[in-house]
Amino acid sequence: MDLSLIQSLMKQNQSKIVLLIMDGVGGLPRDEDGKTELEAAFTPHLDALAKDSVCGLQTPVYSGITPGSGPGHLGVFGYNPLRYQVGRGVLAANGIGFDLKEGDVAARGNFCTINEQDQVMDRRAGRIPTEENTRLCSLLNEKVNIPGIEVFVETVKEHRFLVVFRGENLSGSIKDTDPQEIGKQPLQPVIADPSAEHTAGLVSQFIDQAHEILKDEHPANMVLLRGFSKKPCWPQIKECFGLKSAAIAAYPMYRGVAKLIGMDVLETGQTISEEFDTLERHWNDYDFFYIHIKKTDSYGEDGDFEKKKSVIEEVDRHIPRLRSLRPDVIIVTGDHSTPSTLKMHSWHPVPILLWSTDCRNDLVTQFGERACITGGLGPQFPAEDLLPLALANAKRLEKFGA
Amino acid sequence: MDLSLIQSLMKQNQSKIVLLIMDGVGGLPRDEDGKTELEAAFTPHLDALAKDSVCGLQTPVYSGITPGSGPGHLGVFGYNPLRYQVGRGVLAANGIGFDLKEGDVAARGNFCTINEQDQVMDRRAGRIPTEENTRLCSLLNEKVNIPGIEVFVETVKEHRFLVVFRGENLSGSIKDTDPQEIGKQPLQPVIADPSAEHTAGLVSQFIDQAHEILKDEHPANMVLLRGFSKKPCWPQIKECFGLKSAAIAAYPMYRGVAKLIGMDVLETGQTISEEFDTLERHWNDYDFFYIHIKKTDSYGEDGDFEKKKSVIEEVDRHIPRLRSLRPDVIIVTGDHSTPSTLKMHSWHPVPILLWSTDCRNDLVTQFGERACITGGLGPQFPAEDLLPLALANAKRLEKFGA
Repeated sequence: MDLSLIQSLMKQNQSKIVLLIMDGVGGLPRDEDGKTELEAAFTPHLDALAKDSVCGLQTPVYSGITPGSGPGHLGVFGYNPLRYQVGRGVLAANGIGFDLKEGDVAARGNFCTINEQDQVMDRRAGRIPTEENTRLCSLLNEKVNIPGIEVFVETVKEHRFLVVFRGENLSGSIKDTDPQEIGKQPLQPVIADPSAEHTAGLVSQFIDQAHEILKDEHPANMVLLRGFSKKPCWPQIKECFGLKSAAIAAYPMYRGVAKLIGMDVLETGQTISEEFDTLERHWNDYDFFYIHIKKTDSYGEDGDFEKKKSVIEEVDRHIPRLRSLRPDVIIVTGDHSTPSTLKMHSWHPVPILLWSTDCRNDLVTQFGERACITGGLGPQFPAEDLLPLALANAKRLEKFGA
Repeated sequence: MDLSLIQSLMKQNQSKIVLLIMDGVGGLPRDEDGKTELEAAFTPHLDALAKDSVCGLQTPVYSGITPGSGPGHLGVFGYNPLRYQVGRGVLAANGIGFDLKEGDVAARGNFCTINEQDQVMDRRAGRIPTEENTRLCSLLNEKVNIPGIEVFVETVKEHRFLVVFRGENLSGSIKDTDPQEIGKQPLQPVIADPSAEHTAGLVSQFIDQAHEILKDEHPANMVLLRGFSKKPCWPQIKECFGLKSAAIAAYPMYRGVAKLIGMDVLETGQTISEEFDTLERHWNDYDFFYIHIKKTDSYGEDGDFEKKKSVIEEVDRHIPRLRSLRPDVIIVTGDHSTPSTLKMHSWHPVPILLWSTDCRNDLVTQFGERACITGGLGPQFPAEDLLPLALANAKRLEKFGA
């Protein structure tokens, strides 16, 4: 979908659209009864909504592609995830809620172990505990000193950290220093285009100083950096789709992705109920609400079928609260599938329902993977076409051509 | 679909293809019985045809996009409606059957009301009656005099008219003069590219003369122009698809669109029965017939469910006549949906059936919105892929690759 087409047709009105994302909601049948998490869950309110909705399954990126959280979300936000790609450094910043400024360059770091010939012996330094990581980050923050720029080193988890370079005229066009192989030395920061010369010099200084500061530590005595990137300058959701938009998400990663496209991120509690409280509290302030439910994905990754199912059931119990707000359009879907049988994100299309008074409901009466196949959106609906369809249902698009 | 791919594969034979368009045929369920117009209609012949057809729903332009008549038709004619766009001036000419010559520049005009400071007070001059419009157009046709070119001013309806500039080296790259806002003066005709300098001067003269000629009229004392455009020079249907093609359409707009892609436009009467008479009369003269039924859309726009349904039923009664001609391929669909519950064109996919002896029929046994979802074409078939599929069914395409 060409965003400029939508821009040329959009108009304003008082309608409200709610996009409810159950992270990783799609699943696979378990042996026991041949049902997926969603099919096994008791979801009377979602089923009733599905009955009056147009249903289907959506493909987040492309057939066969397993999306990360970034691409999975960008698709349902109407942004082609192949065109709008985020660097790993920026994603790491999003993931821990680090507030990147314009011009900052972020990279994902690993603490690693090198030997006396500077050869990498363990790319993850034995997956050091997070507390050890925190101590080393403090050490680097205290001792690294590169004139003219600020450097922030932030713990992510275990051996993983974030480094952010802040200063004038920095570039993200720098290649990874991780050799990806045991027995090789860390790579020099090589420029990917000439404008990055200056930044590469600064990164080089950082690596040299880190090498010196960490030399007596064990096992984490060196750093490897990858995914150098700047916060992208993307068209914002208000320009693209005309929607004053708010994100309700308890986890930093999803708040970060929402910020990249210009959503306001609302303060909210950690529970599903608190997220719906937040929705109610801000109902009059926005046109478009994105609500993110994390635990469906977490339990999917844990391989915990029952708990994933129970999160879906908990969400179901909040659907009447959502409907009593009288939104004009409701979309329920996920950003990807996370079958608990696989314990990981997967490529399977994600069940979707879109409700509005004029959606032309189909014959689907249950919100589940197999039931939605015969829905009006079909079994392979491109995620990026979803938001334009929501705008149509909200009567926010003019006719194209006379 | 890449038109050159089809061109490289097409071959000639004696087959005949009929495309029957019921304008705006797609609908939405009414409250009374949850049925759409097509679902509620008694259509034994269409249902029998559907049973032997491959069915589905087609998306005229893109998911969520509500097509005007131009884009809606271009899609089912095999032309990507986003690539092949027609200016509003050309569409206005089509709409009243004005025969644009190559090089003509057409624009849509509004009669408007301005005050003594030349500020627009009413962009539509109180929607003057069409008779008044006709009188003013005559006045302009009589008095406007621009050396070197011809100017035609033609009534459309109420405050709307068409103006056509005919002469050497004219350009359509001129911006609208309608300020789109009350209290502003009409805009000067600004060029959108340098080649339009000459034309802009002529348009300027036209506006100045119209201002003078209309100055004592009330309320229509000025003109606003928009959608300057030339008849596009598109690849013709004979080259693209190898089909000697005829249009059977009672309304000027649809005759005009058919002409843009090089169809012969057949003289026909206003009724559905007369349109089928025309088909029978010319059966031996063409490979491809496009038959346009207008009233499904008109009654949809009126919000008249019953009358829209009865037009569908009338078309159904003519299906045996169509079949007795023994066409090789029959397609029945619409150019867009016009649900009578919405009283306007809408974004909803349009039911479609494609019949041939070798179409591989699916399990659909009724021609309706919900029944067609499970058809072999799926619920989101791109309109522009339809004509290539018809060619295949007519055995008019060679194998691709060895």
